[in-house]
Amino acid sequence: MSVFWNKRTNSLIPYVPGEQPRDREFIKLNTNENPYPPSPNVVAAIEETLSGGDKSSLSNGERLRLYPDPLCTGFTEAVAAAYGVNPSQVFPGNGSDEVLAFAFGAFFESRRNLVDVHVNDASAVLFPDITYSFYPVYANLWDIPFKTIPLQEDFSINLDDYNLDAYSTAGKDLCIGNSTADSGGVIIPNPNAPTGRALPVSPLLQLARKLEQNHRVLIVDEAYIAFGAESLVPYISDYPNLLTVHTLSKSASLAGLRTGFAIGSEELIEGLFRIRNSFNSYTLDAFALAGGAAAVLDKSYYDRINKKVIATRERTAAALLAMGFKVIPSKANFLFVSFPGRSGSDLFQALRDRGILVRHFNKPRIDDYLRVSIGTDKDMDVFLAVCKDITDV
Amino acid sequence: MSVFWNKRTNSLIPYVPGEQPRDREFIKLNTNENPYPPSPNVVAAIEETLSGGDKSSLSNGERLRLYPDPLCTGFTEAVAAAYGVNPSQVFPGNGSDEVLAFAFGAFFESRRNLVDVHVNDASAVLFPDITYSFYPVYANLWDIPFKTIPLQEDFSINLDDYNLDAYSTAGKDLCIGNSTADSGGVIIPNPNAPTGRALPVSPLLQLARKLEQNHRVLIVDEAYIAFGAESLVPYISDYPNLLTVHTLSKSASLAGLRTGFAIGSEELIEGLFRIRNSFNSYTLDAFALAGGAAAVLDKSYYDRINKKVIATRERTAAALLAMGFKVIPSKANFLFVSFPGRSGSDLFQALRDRGILVRHFNKPRIDDYLRVSIGTDKDMDVFLAVCKDITDV
Repeated sequence: MSVFWNKRTNSLIPYVPGEQPRDREFIKLNTNENPYPPSPNVVAAIEETLSGGDKSSLSNGERLRLYPDPLCTGFTEAVAAAYGVNPSQVFPGNGSDEVLAFAFGAFFESRRNLVDVHVNDASAVLFPDITYSFYPVYANLWDIPFKTIPLQEDFSINLDDYNLDAYSTAGKDLCIGNSTADSGGVIIPNPNAPTGRALPVSPLLQLARKLEQNHRVLIVDEAYIAFGAESLVPYISDYPNLLTVHTLSKSASLAGLRTGFAIGSEELIEGLFRIRNSFNSYTLDAFALAGGAAAVLDKSYYDRINKKVIATRERTAAALLAMGFKVIPSKANFLFVSFPGRSGSDLFQALRDRGILVRHFNKPRIDDYLRVSIGTDKDMDVFLAVCKDITDV
Repeated sequence: MSVFWNKRTNSLIPYVPGEQPRDREFIKLNTNENPYPPSPNVVAAIEETLSGGDKSSLSNGERLRLYPDPLCTGFTEAVAAAYGVNPSQVFPGNGSDEVLAFAFGAFFESRRNLVDVHVNDASAVLFPDITYSFYPVYANLWDIPFKTIPLQEDFSINLDDYNLDAYSTAGKDLCIGNSTADSGGVIIPNPNAPTGRALPVSPLLQLARKLEQNHRVLIVDEAYIAFGAESLVPYISDYPNLLTVHTLSKSASLAGLRTGFAIGSEELIEGLFRIRNSFNSYTLDAFALAGGAAAVLDKSYYDRINKKVIATRERTAAALLAMGFKVIPSKANFLFVSFPGRSGSDLFQALRDRGILVRHFNKPRIDDYLRVSIGTDKDMDVFLAVCKDITDV
């Protein structure tokens, strides 16, 4: 608390990212980083940016004295080519976290504006109770009302729970402040995090269509889509209210480069640019633009390494099941696991003591679970040996 | 307009950055970039980050697969060492624009919260009518009421106009919505942009103290401080409500790297981190962190190139005055100039037709002026020759 902070600053509860240890060497399975290096083309593109590349008049590093292209033209064109969409359907961001922050600010209504409108327009954003824990933080940042929808017992998402009609006919209580609200929009990660469970395309598209009729946006966070779930990108031209959000941090091994993007209709992309250009005109630096473009264009390299991640995930899941772990079926580059009779914090600490860092969320329903990122085969062999050791009675 | 945008997105007027031409070669004097390349130490730090450097176990580019340090420890420690402050008094940002966006979100109150509080607490942020045109954009983004204070006739700032007491005693009208408000905080650039005029330290500190008594923050935007004005950084430990904002884009020749920072009291820095961590946990990538740290530590290189910029500015100003231009005294890396009897848009176009890009703001009071960034001596010789040519009657 400080007398110099405003109410927002005093009241919000910031997101806490996974630990980035700097003191000792861990097998780091806690922030869903890709265990393999980025494409050599990314390294080459960054080297070229630094040296001045084809602009032979520039000395080493001189490119950096100039502002980057605020439209991110090269990067958005590369994304468009790689995903078969138009550049005007692509929004570039400083990681998908920034894209999500802008999307909440652009498409979901703040409380202040809701009091002025008809009660039936007033509305909360819906997302699962167990999901990326940044979503409620974004909502609070922009003062957007939200309601969490419980996952099923098996941690799957039932999209019927996000259906406006179901709410209005069943008269379920979505009371926000003084008004009974319908949905103000929905955000769903596919696959979900930290569970790893994926949804099929068809019910997501049905939900998008229902929301479109009420002028609501569906954001599908596809941060982990490269690890086995089916993307909605091929459908965006038919759904003007559907925004898919992507990151190069996981599938493109570029967490250190801070590059992400959204794909959606031109009007959604323009909305994101309006917010971005009211915040920071240049959120991607020269290296993120060049490296990001090279990454999205090297599909064959990334398909190869991500297939390895998937194979390692399946092998790890089978081994954990054989040891008596409970393992949620995953289409992501992590597994969500628990061990009967052992608390999550206890397992977390036992792994940490043996040099393995995983993620534990001290939250209702999932405090017995650990989220384990998929490392190299060698990493996972060590992880499995330690799991065997600490659960063997 | 789109039915899928919220009210904020529909109503805001985004900032428009200076043109970044990609079609032809201009002498680019329109976005206050430094004409000299960044320090060789910056290039070396980026090369080391790419190659893995001392972490010999990493292959080329492999560092990028890992998230950067969310605390930006190395960079904030470098800033602290270079500026003689504690690391806890430093906030790292993706350019000073991002730092400013967070600062508006952290310290100035939104309309929604103002209606709930005592009338005398309700308050508008004050800044000059002619200043960095992103300030009203930030205010609108966060729904913060603001009032612009006119510059004097000679484009200087009279800080008495920002004095709370002066307002309350003179009964000047600061009516915001339904409440008569005092100041909710002040932001002043020193030197101001686009005028280039600087303020002395003493009245700024007096204003900070007055605002402190009312729990208000003074932000001093020191983006151009390296070109001759006096910084408030040495005083921040005595003024808990004083935030200085800095960028590496201009004085450190790193517009392409997107790195900036704020220096202020621990409580202000913590407030900025609270907003940032509700927005994006990793806004600086691995290159910005490494290059930024190398830059702030190479004071001797940057003192040398910025002295050259200052000398070129003074020579250019003298030559323009001799030609009959009006030149506002500048402590920045640009000049704000007009030519009697010629409109700003006319001069802008005449220069553009001859391959010289400057900045023209189509705004009241300054539409006859051009902001001209200081380039190399060679750039400015061409600029002066063209000026001579287009104003010679």
